[in-house]
Amino acid sequence: MNMKSVSYILGWILNVEAALMGLPLVTAVIYGETQGIAFAATMALCALVGFLLTHKRAASPHFYAREGFVATALSWIVMSVFGCLPFYLSGEIPRFVDALFETVSGFTTTGASILSDVEHMSHCCMLWRCFTHWIGGMGVLVFLLAVLPMVGGSNMHLMKAESPGPVVGKLVPKVRYTARILYMLYIVLTILEFLLLMLGGMIPFEALCTSFGTAGTGGFGFRNDSFASFSPYIQWVVAVFMIIFGVNFNVYFLVFMKKFKQALSCEEMRWYLAIIAGATLLIFMNTYDVSLTAENNLRVSVFQVATIITTTGFATTNFDLWPTFSKAILVLLMFIGACAGSTGGGLKVSRWVMSGKAMGSYVGSFLHPRGVRRVRFEEKDVEDSTLHAIFVYFMGVFFIFVASMLVLALENMDLVSTFTAVAATFNNIGPGLNLVGPTCNFGFLSDLSKVVLIFDMLAGRLEVFPMLMLLYPPLWREAFSEHKRKKRREEMMRQVGGDER
Amino acid sequence: MNMKSVSYILGWILNVEAALMGLPLVTAVIYGETQGIAFAATMALCALVGFLLTHKRAASPHFYAREGFVATALSWIVMSVFGCLPFYLSGEIPRFVDALFETVSGFTTTGASILSDVEHMSHCCMLWRCFTHWIGGMGVLVFLLAVLPMVGGSNMHLMKAESPGPVVGKLVPKVRYTARILYMLYIVLTILEFLLLMLGGMIPFEALCTSFGTAGTGGFGFRNDSFASFSPYIQWVVAVFMIIFGVNFNVYFLVFMKKFKQALSCEEMRWYLAIIAGATLLIFMNTYDVSLTAENNLRVSVFQVATIITTTGFATTNFDLWPTFSKAILVLLMFIGACAGSTGGGLKVSRWVMSGKAMGSYVGSFLHPRGVRRVRFEEKDVEDSTLHAIFVYFMGVFFIFVASMLVLALENMDLVSTFTAVAATFNNIGPGLNLVGPTCNFGFLSDLSKVVLIFDMLAGRLEVFPMLMLLYPPLWREAFSEHKRKKRREEMMRQVGGDER
Repeated sequence: MNMKSVSYILGWILNVEAALMGLPLVTAVIYGETQGIAFAATMALCALVGFLLTHKRAASPHFYAREGFVATALSWIVMSVFGCLPFYLSGEIPRFVDALFETVSGFTTTGASILSDVEHMSHCCMLWRCFTHWIGGMGVLVFLLAVLPMVGGSNMHLMKAESPGPVVGKLVPKVRYTARILYMLYIVLTILEFLLLMLGGMIPFEALCTSFGTAGTGGFGFRNDSFASFSPYIQWVVAVFMIIFGVNFNVYFLVFMKKFKQALSCEEMRWYLAIIAGATLLIFMNTYDVSLTAENNLRVSVFQVATIITTTGFATTNFDLWPTFSKAILVLLMFIGACAGSTGGGLKVSRWVMSGKAMGSYVGSFLHPRGVRRVRFEEKDVEDSTLHAIFVYFMGVFFIFVASMLVLALENMDLVSTFTAVAATFNNIGPGLNLVGPTCNFGFLSDLSKVVLIFDMLAGRLEVFPMLMLLYPPLWREAFSEHKRKKRREEMMRQVGGDER
Repeated sequence: MNMKSVSYILGWILNVEAALMGLPLVTAVIYGETQGIAFAATMALCALVGFLLTHKRAASPHFYAREGFVATALSWIVMSVFGCLPFYLSGEIPRFVDALFETVSGFTTTGASILSDVEHMSHCCMLWRCFTHWIGGMGVLVFLLAVLPMVGGSNMHLMKAESPGPVVGKLVPKVRYTARILYMLYIVLTILEFLLLMLGGMIPFEALCTSFGTAGTGGFGFRNDSFASFSPYIQWVVAVFMIIFGVNFNVYFLVFMKKFKQALSCEEMRWYLAIIAGATLLIFMNTYDVSLTAENNLRVSVFQVATIITTTGFATTNFDLWPTFSKAILVLLMFIGACAGSTGGGLKVSRWVMSGKAMGSYVGSFLHPRGVRRVRFEEKDVEDSTLHAIFVYFMGVFFIFVASMLVLALENMDLVSTFTAVAATFNNIGPGLNLVGPTCNFGFLSDLSKVVLIFDMLAGRLEVFPMLMLLYPPLWREAFSEHKRKKRREEMMRQVGGDER
């Protein structure tokens, strides 16, 4: 294990985090909030540790998939631990595990909160809370790749480990330029939403928080009723942008390159939009409330479908009161998730489409045993290795899910709360049903449950394997024995050197 | 599509069913019950249709996987439709869809009932109800293979389509002898349980019904409280035999061949027993009731774990009242299921073990990208095609599950009832939780829901693909165009013949 390169990356993560905390610090200055001190202190700490880890450039070229996974998983953990310090130090979230939960929920764009009353939070803390969504949405390592020349071989492995989806495609041959383009598109779309929200009469602070939350498909609200009290215009803008940020960013790159036809033919996007349309229609019919206008009914349906499938987690209504059919659709959408290569979570539309096609092709193979059956997706043959990767990914999801559910079950909540608490965090959505429904929060859970859900949020955001890698005993056994071997070699070299002298 | 061979097989299914109904008929005679007339009439009908379909031997050798799947799926449907007639004609179950539900539940060894009061059923109907479990447990096509010389190529395809598990192994080179050995072992074990139950003071009729239900891992009770009112000895015997019938029958064949060491080394069985032991221990601790003895607590835990993992569905307690942790374990066991090659349902232990190992091997492959990672199971390398088959099987389960759940959701029951109603029928268990819990029944559901659950029970028992094949449009399109082609050819031949004459 090339720990030097890994710690070099961790150092840069902290440097970047220190810089990013400038935004809440400025906010604190503007609003004259004393909580700014907590940010300043944390920035200093981040910068100090970051400097220590990065002052010597790690130039080792040995950077493989395992290093990519470990670096990514540790980056997200380190980033969250330091990122929660302002909440903790300022006393806005007095318990450390709660502060960590909230921060991980932010970075992983989950949006599950332990706060019962968000309206009394200081502006700087609130902004940092929403800003973490934005940072985590496109990914901090992708950001690092965009701005920093990295050690050989590391680029693609880091990109793969952090970007969601079964196949990570580069937009352009160089990873670095791909990362830059992605961030550019991300920033442009965020600004566009910000402006449209301002146009709807939102104050700048709220428009910024909302844009950050939507862009990252995060879902932290800054009002206790989430988005229920905002105007229809605002709700529509947010709904549309949630859907926009759930689309594979390749599409926007194609639009940017003026390849409109290619952009429109993106198969995953078509399925994604079709699922949204179908789910909205079914829920619209199932929950139709005659005391409201048709527009109002439609808006409520679209908003909730968009919020769940994109795994954002805003809400304009308490969908926990909906009939079972609509709730079942929402639970299903929780597991479908957004498109690969978007900022959304969940298991991703493309995985399901390819799996469904693999099943169809399998049934077909019995009809014509000698015919060659291929699975086609995005006008290409899907490789067997991709299908296998999807399979083991689903298995990873399942095993983590079951283990988490059993720990959560010790809380003795009802089964629906237990199940959706895991589903909503693992899939980076936010609200579940019943006790963890849209009008509730996760604060009442035990510390053990919170730690498990913190793991789940990270595992969901990083798509299982980086986090599983950290728990894989042979990794540490080998890393340790390598270390010992190296030490021995150095010892020998020194002895030989001594003899020669 | 070779429909001649398929209808020939259907004909034999009906002949066999007519013969098997002799048992309830004799019972009716013994107890002097008029319901016997319904059995006599059904037998005559079965024999008549059976004779019409089998009087001309179908000798076509074109019998491939698709014919195997279609023949198996249709066999089970035909068998159930005729099998439900005695209940319907005798008026014991006045609605046809209910009678069909009960019969499919019987043959598929589910044990989900629409009856709220089973104690008032006539002896002959009750015996037929429990006997269907026994017939369906080992499979009626396996029985046919054992007693009938079949058309070329059909043997293995029928065996594969009906036998549960990811890989269907033959015990001996000939399918026919394999089928005979399986039925012999099945009969011996059933008789053994029958004798042990008699020894515990059960009356012969109840001992027979219980043995049928346990052997097939069915679960129809003949008392309204299932097994709660029986003696501890009886409960222990039933619990142990449920576990026995959930083991891969290969193990008993090895024992029969005196290869004890090989029998004990069966990996799937070891996992299966380990899971039972683990689940029992956890539930034992979680539900410990100080007002009962330790033996009583242990017995309740073992019984419920055995009944769910083997997908039998008997009950000695209302586990719906258990704490969430224990209920979560039961829900998990519902999906694990018994061993492949047993009479139990569910997704099968071997599939999970192989999937888990595939996942571990995948994580390991990142550690040593160049190392060859293989998945080992039962001391053999698992082929990629097997893993792919498991993957598409899981996908099939998932898609059927979701579709069924959405239909069931229209009943507007709570989510847990909706979910476990599908889980308990698809996995061929019987009782679910809440409204379909162990003290309830499925009678209150709408006809639409019942039809969906009938499909699910069949799909679960036949492991998805035979039933999916029936719903696969290209199959019928091709079968139809083949038929037209054939007709045209015949027409042309006749014209040519006419010209010649």
